Amino acid sequence: MNISGTHYRTIWPTVTGSVRVIDQSRLPFEFATVDLETLEDAASAIRSMVVRGAPLIGATAAYGIALASRQDSSDTHLKEAARTLQATRPTAHNLAWALSQMRRALKRVSPRERANVAFKEAARICDADVEQCRAIGVHGFEIIRRRAAAVGRVVNILTHCNAGWLACVDWGTALSPVYAAHDAGIPIHVWVDETRPRNQGASLTAFELAAQGVPHTVIADNLGGHLMQRGRVDMVIVGSDRTTAAGDVCNKIGTYLKALAARDNDIPFYAALPAGTIDWSLDQGSDIPIEERSATELTHITGRSSSGALATVRVVPESSPVLNLGFDVTPARLVTALITERGLCAASRAGLESLYPDRRIAHALVGS
Amino acid sequence: MNISGTHYRTIWPTVTGSVRVIDQSRLPFEFATVDLETLEDAASAIRSMVVRGAPLIGATAAYGIALASRQDSSDTHLKEAARTLQATRPTAHNLAWALSQMRRALKRVSPRERANVAFKEAARICDADVEQCRAIGVHGFEIIRRRAAAVGRVVNILTHCNAGWLACVDWGTALSPVYAAHDAGIPIHVWVDETRPRNQGASLTAFELAAQGVPHTVIADNLGGHLMQRGRVDMVIVGSDRTTAAGDVCNKIGTYLKALAARDNDIPFYAALPAGTIDWSLDQGSDIPIEERSATELTHITGRSSSGALATVRVVPESSPVLNLGFDVTPARLVTALITERGLCAASRAGLESLYPDRRIAHALVGS
Repeated sequence: MNISGTHYRTIWPTVTGSVRVIDQSRLPFEFATVDLETLEDAASAIRSMVVRGAPLIGATAAYGIALASRQDSSDTHLKEAARTLQATRPTAHNLAWALSQMRRALKRVSPRERANVAFKEAARICDADVEQCRAIGVHGFEIIRRRAAAVGRVVNILTHCNAGWLACVDWGTALSPVYAAHDAGIPIHVWVDETRPRNQGASLTAFELAAQGVPHTVIADNLGGHLMQRGRVDMVIVGSDRTTAAGDVCNKIGTYLKALAARDNDIPFYAALPAGTIDWSLDQGSDIPIEERSATELTHITGRSSSGALATVRVVPESSPVLNLGFDVTPARLVTALITERGLCAASRAGLESLYPDRRIAHALVGS
Repeated sequence: MNISGTHYRTIWPTVTGSVRVIDQSRLPFEFATVDLETLEDAASAIRSMVVRGAPLIGATAAYGIALASRQDSSDTHLKEAARTLQATRPTAHNLAWALSQMRRALKRVSPRERANVAFKEAARICDADVEQCRAIGVHGFEIIRRRAAAVGRVVNILTHCNAGWLACVDWGTALSPVYAAHDAGIPIHVWVDETRPRNQGASLTAFELAAQGVPHTVIADNLGGHLMQRGRVDMVIVGSDRTTAAGDVCNKIGTYLKALAARDNDIPFYAALPAGTIDWSLDQGSDIPIEERSATELTHITGRSSSGALATVRVVPESSPVLNLGFDVTPARLVTALITERGLCAASRAGLESLYPDRRIAHALVGS
């Protein structure tokens, strides 16, 4: 997507052999890139959320294996590298998926060829992600187009967290249909949940939408239910960090509350996701490990001070403990449909299998 | 309640004739009081949220009339004073209720006696609030006691915003049962919603509970639904800024989302409120005016910087508009019961009328 007229992806290889990423921990106030030179650079970028978003975590992990194979392409080292990367974020399924793709691509390759093949495979994963996100946009666009025709006014779309191009390599998942609709001239407006405690809505989604000129309004996470009661939301579109084979959607903490409010007000609720997000080995969302993150994400907030510098302030008294979990599970029964690169389907095993009849084969390969 | 061993109310008259309040805009990091000398001081304290919480807003408005009557006790001035105070916060019903109480107390009093009578009536309203909150605690205590006996472990209570003693004159509404249970030695733990955008949970409720030694954990507003899904919440207790005659509960923005999650997980959801919160003139919560507050409450956050000083940072990019509404309405169908100073009742017209058979008389007097 574009930033000040220049087209960017979120991750790309440089001519010097490093992998460059946008430093998302400094957005929206500073746009900067970081060069990843080693496996540890890649793992650290994921762990510290310099990069985040399930598809981009997968892409970064793929390049992490490529960087590792340049350092030492032995089986032992690459296994250790995969373990290191897998441990960075427990919830996003694309991480395990990307590592399995890399393992498959490298397993019949001689050690001295591995770095070369690994960089090519990581690039292929990135290109595939871009194409999948573009296709999600095409399918989701139809929903927005039909809704616009039905309401005959601006379509109000609520989204939670950031499932835009910054969460992927380009286009985004939940926001890809939004960009497609905006580009096609359909009048839309996006309600952007702030998304505590890391504020990815207020910082990343707002930044993205402003950069593309999409009308939007930032709101507290608490406001969405009221807006739905008052008829000010036409649909909800979110991303997914892991989708079970039965259609349960694990996504940023707070997503479940918005799904409940959408159901209570008869508003359609969609999750947009590429195939790599689907965990065919799980039915019950309650079996997904939920990442517990640092208390400081809730107790401290970083922003721009009146002097223009970035500053961090403490907002919770030191005498109070906090709990900070990153994700929740929206049961399939609350999801109107899943939007995938292959089209829409019901959030159910039957729905997913109708789009992915090859899934048992895929699962067997992933498990290999 | 106690702060560092000293008993405080949130508002009290001083020997010099001013009215002293705790400056809640500086909590939890600084404990300071402010003296209100004039009507405008009182209106400004409500408007800027130096004082907040429906019962305390009512008490401050009552003292505002007393301060106004000392400045000029004419009918014209007191009518104008009531209009000024009423305009400070549109949603909380206790404000209109307290002003009507003051009007009734003063209407047959000669202008030169009015200041004296007004200060006495304001003190009576404060004492009545303390007694009502204490009684809410007694009735709510029974719910917690029974739940503790049923679960045989720590009872986990989730609350939203601050409906503690800082929101009232003493004891609190939602937190009064919590304090009663804690004082009786029942093992409890409180999940404290941060309550964006003004963070009254993280700042005021956490401060209160820590000061009284009640075990608690601060969480993002997004987390409560997940905790309920995982069986980590036994009940929800919130306050109310206005309760309709049919039992709809208007409370801090985000309350509705927690009520939906409680219903989805079969967890009891209570609203605790004194009679002054009930708006007998309204049935539909959707008819309650919802206060729109300044965008800066969402775009900027104040906390303690690493140097120890209070500092404000901007967290939403300047290119993004925001919308900041203060309250939402939880429909009566989602409320397990209302906890009032007269006991528990169903959130319905029949339920409220069973506790307040005198309500038509009261309404006639309020409307006079």
